[in-house]
Amino acid sequence: MNLEMIHAAAIRLLGKARRTPLLHSQFLDEIAGRRLYIKAECLQHTGSFKYRGAYAAISAMPDEVREKGIIAYSSGNHAQGVALAAQQHNAPAVIVMPSDAPEIKLANTRSYGAEVILYDRASESREEIAEALATERGLRLIKPYDEPQVIAGQGTAGLEIAQQSRDLEVEKAEVLVCCGGGGLTSGVALALSKHAPEMTVRPVEPQGFDDTARSLEAGTRVTNERETDSIFDAIMTPTPGEITFPLLQKYCKGGLVVSENEALRAMALAFERLKIVIEPGGAVALAAALFHRDSIASDSVIVVASGGNVQADIFTRALQTKD
Amino acid sequence: MNLEMIHAAAIRLLGKARRTPLLHSQFLDEIAGRRLYIKAECLQHTGSFKYRGAYAAISAMPDEVREKGIIAYSSGNHAQGVALAAQQHNAPAVIVMPSDAPEIKLANTRSYGAEVILYDRASESREEIAEALATERGLRLIKPYDEPQVIAGQGTAGLEIAQQSRDLEVEKAEVLVCCGGGGLTSGVALALSKHAPEMTVRPVEPQGFDDTARSLEAGTRVTNERETDSIFDAIMTPTPGEITFPLLQKYCKGGLVVSENEALRAMALAFERLKIVIEPGGAVALAAALFHRDSIASDSVIVVASGGNVQADIFTRALQTKD
Repeated sequence: MNLEMIHAAAIRLLGKARRTPLLHSQFLDEIAGRRLYIKAECLQHTGSFKYRGAYAAISAMPDEVREKGIIAYSSGNHAQGVALAAQQHNAPAVIVMPSDAPEIKLANTRSYGAEVILYDRASESREEIAEALATERGLRLIKPYDEPQVIAGQGTAGLEIAQQSRDLEVEKAEVLVCCGGGGLTSGVALALSKHAPEMTVRPVEPQGFDDTARSLEAGTRVTNERETDSIFDAIMTPTPGEITFPLLQKYCKGGLVVSENEALRAMALAFERLKIVIEPGGAVALAAALFHRDSIASDSVIVVASGGNVQADIFTRALQTKD
Repeated sequence: MNLEMIHAAAIRLLGKARRTPLLHSQFLDEIAGRRLYIKAECLQHTGSFKYRGAYAAISAMPDEVREKGIIAYSSGNHAQGVALAAQQHNAPAVIVMPSDAPEIKLANTRSYGAEVILYDRASESREEIAEALATERGLRLIKPYDEPQVIAGQGTAGLEIAQQSRDLEVEKAEVLVCCGGGGLTSGVALALSKHAPEMTVRPVEPQGFDDTARSLEAGTRVTNERETDSIFDAIMTPTPGEITFPLLQKYCKGGLVVSENEALRAMALAFERLKIVIEPGGAVALAAALFHRDSIASDSVIVVASGGNVQADIFTRALQTKD
């Protein structure tokens, strides 16, 4: 995994991935106590940054591999990214998804032409199911984060942040990234280490799913106790990846942890002040910038609003959430 | 009013107005029955295109006029645009707003440092109040749409549409624009008449407020019966402007009219498929593209999602609206 792979992914993604805007609101600055910029990856194709990594991985495959088909496991956002990118390459796609994934994510994945295979998150292993199917059908597995080409694709968001912040004359900033398995966080951190070296990337997680923050502190990968029952379906990974963790250790500073209430209020403020829709897992970085200002040192802070695939009932709940 | 004024406004707005993205979703294409592109002006500063016209008008004033102060009347979006643009020019601003304007628009206008003066929409004339104050305090009035520099500013959205659609290799398209007094619609139409001459601009209005559609048909300005009690507060103007109407006649084709139910469903689909927040008055063009497909002839259609300043209760209602 190296920087050149991110550069190469950026070239393959030209005209494919959307260059999402870096938004700003003086009302949010006031709450954050500093200049706050929001990279709106919810506006990416399929509603999350995952399209970048999926397209990067599929476009990097030899034709004969891609033609046989692709398999992935995902709670939903990686699923949609892979399904669309596979469709755009005319490659068959099979996606293994938890039976409790948000309905909209299941339906969308199918709409992009993928075959969806459900599993029970509590009793079955998605990795085992996917690997068995991959062998049986000759499919190439694209892991959601522990896969260099996926990390390279996610890193292209970091290249954009470097360019967009330079346009705004922001050189120093903490960059807060919503963190599940660490693919986005490590890709962005690797990109910025070269292209915006005065920036510091920090992973942000919800309470109860703070494996990355604790792993960084412990210096070794630790695991969450809980794996289900959360509105943070997008970032409920049990532990940092084997490939992502060393990158996180090398390029990131300490993780931040936010509450469910804070994430919901961040969603409501993004609605009110930015006019964007973000899901709970895509709101934790913004929540940290808004409600943990004392844990941030820089004059400017950049957050990645990583996804917007949220069902109406949870969004409505966010709009009604009070302090 | 001419094209050169739009070009000049675009130069003044460089680095000020946001170049809003032109979004796309294959799910919406399916409903629309053609390629559908959405110009997300809800992501503009202050949450609507109105910032463009306000900034264009204020930046065009001689210093000695601007320093004395600015006055505007508005249901809310023009108010916010003028207030922010005035703040950025260090000019005092007074905004005359209806007492039944959405709370968030009143609060925001004040937050941008403007003095807000309320009037009763049913019994008082905002024009008279504003003109009296302008004389009394030596303020320069910026009308919401019947003002060449405002039309020029709104027209910069048209320049962006021309460029963005060329990047997508879309040459022919109907361009649907949410229409109140016609400032945005006429500005966009004038810009496209030169820069994307194969495009046809059409105003879109809600039922009961279809003065522009009826005026275009009649060949003369006609007036709405109703002026209040609507979720379409952004575009409830009684009749097309004196300056905008001849432009609309010259550059636009027939208007489209949508129902409240259609606008609310368009808001829900923009939430689900585009991850953007749009207000009822900013959703009518999208609603026309989605639910009036037989009234549209072109293979591609571009809609302007003109604003996103909507209160949570109305947005929640939109998310619950069924066919």
